[in-house]
Amino acid sequence: MSTLCVPSQVPSVAEDCELLRKAFAGWGTNEGLIISILGHRNAPQRKLIRQVYAETYGEDLLKVLDRNCQVTLSQRVVKLWTLDPAERDAFLANEAIKKWTSSNQLLVPLVSSYRYGGDDVNLTLAKTEAKLLHQKISEKAYSCDDVIRILTTRSKAQINATLNQYKNEFGNDINKNLKADPKDEFLALLRATIKCLVCPEKYFAKVLRLSINKLGTEEGALTRVVATRAEVDMKVIKDLYQKRNSVPLDQAIAKDTHGDYEKMLLTLIGHGPA
Amino acid sequence: MSTLCVPSQVPSVAEDCELLRKAFAGWGTNEGLIISILGHRNAPQRKLIRQVYAETYGEDLLKVLDRNCQVTLSQRVVKLWTLDPAERDAFLANEAIKKWTSSNQLLVPLVSSYRYGGDDVNLTLAKTEAKLLHQKISEKAYSCDDVIRILTTRSKAQINATLNQYKNEFGNDINKNLKADPKDEFLALLRATIKCLVCPEKYFAKVLRLSINKLGTEEGALTRVVATRAEVDMKVIKDLYQKRNSVPLDQAIAKDTHGDYEKMLLTLIGHGPA
Repeated sequence: MSTLCVPSQVPSVAEDCELLRKAFAGWGTNEGLIISILGHRNAPQRKLIRQVYAETYGEDLLKVLDRNCQVTLSQRVVKLWTLDPAERDAFLANEAIKKWTSSNQLLVPLVSSYRYGGDDVNLTLAKTEAKLLHQKISEKAYSCDDVIRILTTRSKAQINATLNQYKNEFGNDINKNLKADPKDEFLALLRATIKCLVCPEKYFAKVLRLSINKLGTEEGALTRVVATRAEVDMKVIKDLYQKRNSVPLDQAIAKDTHGDYEKMLLTLIGHGPA
Repeated sequence: MSTLCVPSQVPSVAEDCELLRKAFAGWGTNEGLIISILGHRNAPQRKLIRQVYAETYGEDLLKVLDRNCQVTLSQRVVKLWTLDPAERDAFLANEAIKKWTSSNQLLVPLVSSYRYGGDDVNLTLAKTEAKLLHQKISEKAYSCDDVIRILTTRSKAQINATLNQYKNEFGNDINKNLKADPKDEFLALLRATIKCLVCPEKYFAKVLRLSINKLGTEEGALTRVVATRAEVDMKVIKDLYQKRNSVPLDQAIAKDTHGDYEKMLLTLIGHGPA
C-alpha cells in the first residue's frame, strides 16, 4: 500500500506546470513549492506533468530540475521521484551495476527470465527443489545452475513453498545457511534476492533501519527506498519499521535529516496535507 | 480480525432458542442445525441465547449439549464455543493446569500481574533490560526474578522494544538463546510466553501447523485454537498459516477432519453462508 497523498481535488496539469515554472523563476529555486506539487502526484500524473511541461515550455522538467536545483540530497530524491517508475529503475540499475563485480551470473537471469505470476503451487516439486537447494548449499555450490534456475524462474508462490519445505525438512531458514562467509558478495546477493522474493517489505524495512542507524545516515539507500517504494508498499514498510525499531519511521527520518530533503522524504511517506 | 460470519439479519433470540430446542428433540440430535445457529452468532449473542434458553426451558444450554450430543470432537468445539470467552479461558486453564508441573513460577504472575496496555516505550530502559536478560540467560538463570518480572509486568510495546534491542545488541532472537535444552519444559514455556507477547497470531499459526501436520491430527490444539481465536484474530492467523504452509487453512482442516467436527471448524474460520 502506497503512502502517497494525492489531494481529492487535483489542480489541472497546466496549473501544476505553471506553478513549477514559477518555482524555477527569480532568485533561487523554490524547492518547497516543487515538493508541495510533485510530492502529492501519482506516477501517471507526474508523467503527464513532464509531458505538458515539455510541450508548454520546450524543456524537459528533469533537465530544469538538474540545472536549477543545487546538487543536493533533496534534488536527488525529487529527481528520482519525477522519473517514471520504469525509467527510475533503469537509472538506478545503471548506477548500481557499476559497483557490482562478480554477481552478473545471478543478476542477468534475474532481470531477463520469465517468471510465472500466479498462486498455483506444486508441493511435490517444492520438496524436491528444497532438497536440491540444501544439497547444493552443503556442497558450497552456491552459484551452480540449479540454484540460479530455481531462484530466477520459479514463481514467488512456488519459491515460498520451496523455502517452507526447506525449513520443515532441514530446520533452518535457507538464509541462515547462506551466511557461511559474511563478507562474500555473491552470498549477500543470494540472501537479498531471497528476501525480496519472499517478503520485499521486510527487506526494505531492514535497508531503512541500516541506513538510518549508521552514523550520519546512509542517504543513498534512504533516498532510493523512499523514492521507489512510496507508491508501492511503503505503508507496510512503515509498520514493519516501527515494529522492529520501536520508533515510527517519520520520527527516525526527522531526527536524522533536515531541510528540503527531510520535507520531501516525509511528504512521500505520507506526511503533510495532500 | 475475526472470521466469524454473522448474518446481516439475525433471527430473534427466541427463534434461535426454539430451533435449538428442536435440534435436541426426536431421534438423535441435529448437530448440523446447532452448528448452523451457534456457529454464526457472536459472543454477546451466544450469551443471550444461553440466558433466554435457560429462562424458557429451565435448563442450561451447555448441560443440554453435554447430555444430548455424543462425546465427540464436534461436541467439544460446540461446547467451547458456546461458553463465554472468559468462562472458556477458565475452563481451558483448569484443564491445562493439571498437566503443568514445574512452571507455576511463571504462570502465576502471568495471570495476576498488572500490565500497562499503552504504546509508550522507554528505549533506555529497553536497552538496560535487554542486557539484563542476556546476562541472566548466559548464566542459565532462566527462572530468576528479573526475567519473570520483565516478562510479566512490562507492557507488550516495552517488551517488544527490549527484544529488538536484544537482537540489535546480541545478534540473535532471544528465543534462539532459550533453546539450550529443547526438552526443558520451563524454557518451552518462556519461548511460548514471548511469542504470545510479541506476535500471538504467528504463535497460533504454528500451533495449528504442528497440530495438523501430526499423523492423525492433534485435535486438542486444533479445537482450542479455532474456538478461542475465531472471534479475535483468526483472519490474520489464516493468512500466516497459508504463507507458511502454501496451503489454505480451510483446505488443510477439510483434509484432516470430517463430519460435524469439520463442519463446525470450517464454519468458525469463515466458511459457508452466515
